[in-house]
Amino acid sequence: MNTGTEKKPRFCIAIHGGAGTIRRSEMSPEKKAVVENDLLESIRAGIQILEKSGKAIDACVAAVSVLEDSPHFNAGKGSVFNSDGFIEMDAQVMCGNSLRAGAVTCIRNIKNPIKLARAILEEGRHVLLSGPGAEKEAKRLGLDFESDPYFFTQFRYDQLQNALNKKTIELDHSDTGDGRFGTVGAVALDEFGDLAASTSTGGMTNQKPGRVGDTPLVGCGNYANNKTCAVSCTGIGESFVRAVSAYDVSAMMEYGKMPLEEACNKVIREKLPAVDGEGGLIAADHLGNLSLPFISKGMYRAWCKAGEDIQLKIYRN
Amino acid sequence: MNTGTEKKPRFCIAIHGGAGTIRRSEMSPEKKAVVENDLLESIRAGIQILEKSGKAIDACVAAVSVLEDSPHFNAGKGSVFNSDGFIEMDAQVMCGNSLRAGAVTCIRNIKNPIKLARAILEEGRHVLLSGPGAEKEAKRLGLDFESDPYFFTQFRYDQLQNALNKKTIELDHSDTGDGRFGTVGAVALDEFGDLAASTSTGGMTNQKPGRVGDTPLVGCGNYANNKTCAVSCTGIGESFVRAVSAYDVSAMMEYGKMPLEEACNKVIREKLPAVDGEGGLIAADHLGNLSLPFISKGMYRAWCKAGEDIQLKIYRN
Repeated sequence: MNTGTEKKPRFCIAIHGGAGTIRRSEMSPEKKAVVENDLLESIRAGIQILEKSGKAIDACVAAVSVLEDSPHFNAGKGSVFNSDGFIEMDAQVMCGNSLRAGAVTCIRNIKNPIKLARAILEEGRHVLLSGPGAEKEAKRLGLDFESDPYFFTQFRYDQLQNALNKKTIELDHSDTGDGRFGTVGAVALDEFGDLAASTSTGGMTNQKPGRVGDTPLVGCGNYANNKTCAVSCTGIGESFVRAVSAYDVSAMMEYGKMPLEEACNKVIREKLPAVDGEGGLIAADHLGNLSLPFISKGMYRAWCKAGEDIQLKIYRN
Repeated sequence: MNTGTEKKPRFCIAIHGGAGTIRRSEMSPEKKAVVENDLLESIRAGIQILEKSGKAIDACVAAVSVLEDSPHFNAGKGSVFNSDGFIEMDAQVMCGNSLRAGAVTCIRNIKNPIKLARAILEEGRHVLLSGPGAEKEAKRLGLDFESDPYFFTQFRYDQLQNALNKKTIELDHSDTGDGRFGTVGAVALDEFGDLAASTSTGGMTNQKPGRVGDTPLVGCGNYANNKTCAVSCTGIGESFVRAVSAYDVSAMMEYGKMPLEEACNKVIREKLPAVDGEGGLIAADHLGNLSLPFISKGMYRAWCKAGEDIQLKIYRN
């Protein structure tokens, strides 16, 4: 999907709520409305910042925070359970202007992992913190914590039991049907020409404790560079890691002189399947183009360019 | 340093023991001999495998294991202490044939982190495991554990006290002078045309607990792809992460049609300083070329092509 290269907009933003096996047959109008409402609230939080001449990074963090606060997505409050029955979350934010990034992995009980990632970016000493060390840093920085019941959703618990019985690792969005979906992310270009990308996830149902997917890894599940693009990925994390997918889009643009759309399609339709991958990504370039390709059945997504209406889609058409 | 492109050798291998402020004035002949001996033992372990028609990945793991077992390098036994006074280690191995990778971060008491990374690669379900989850997996897979005293070295302890007093994070190899140096790694091309890369580290003295550097991150501190090259990095980890350095070498070769030497130099001399970085890397390409650039004062390194003598250097000349 190319939204056009006619004229550089003052700003643009795209968000996703995960890609995967999203069955039309199991999607009641009520469920669809709830998810769509969350996605709209998320993108509006970003647009509000960009309209007031705010920064792309602030818009991305705001948009992802809304989805982390919803129980309907696999990030923050609605995160999936690992094989030991607890939740570990990952998040990353990157600024295309400075190439500074902040990320966290395997953290527990932090209300908004993306805000901790942002705080680590601002602090600047390290890029990625994991586990209890990251939680210690969150305490020092004054981030909000929540107890286990805040994160508990019956649906995710049932998903784990189902996966344990089948001995499979479930993609966050597989076998859903009641309106609780995947990894979330946002990309934006602000009026100063700065790009940013943010991504947050609870990983995969029944994953091993300590498993790190693509989300917190710079260049794999998330990347931003003002010279090229901002990218947020969703799908089978290990494949995005092996393909260094987010940075690969940027590298094809920088070294291969490809336009955004071509680079995104090559990553999702050729490179990802070559490493047993499935999923999608959202991307914005420095000219205000957007691309949102996926090879799963659906991807929860919304996008907007300054002065235009918000677009929202779940399925291919 | 280009070791020539005349004829494709049957195999080749390069290793490093870290890059940094290595002062000639503080390097006694005795200290130099000890370090050189370890480096020779390491590369010979790799060569022995390659000579017997072994695989590049086996050579890389063997070479790095030798340096992990030495107290003179910041990996395995000689690892540095974090700001809370304990050791957390990272390692990664990647196979250029399958693009499969295995990695661990923030692990404690595992004798050879690179062997755990290798086991995770073989297991194939996940790519990167962290902390207690990774240690649980190590127990399941039967890896060797060692107690804290095994990893203790007085020199590293003194380095931490020094860093705590100065409130700085020390690069693993800064202010050395008694023969205990940095992050270790290996790259190799085997006679089947397969490339591999392996890297292992204890991180940076006085780093925050839970800090993840470039070493375990695919495409940042370590990468291998038969189409292009195998790369292992050493230096200020956060900069290699922000620059996605190891994959960047590969991307410049694949999309920018650069030869290995040019791509490596661009990453180390241009891209890394642009994100406040310092360090070096070792790389091998699919034609058997080797490149070992660095911008620090020195880099412990050795390399060999089939049928030629082993080369070993510390300083620029």
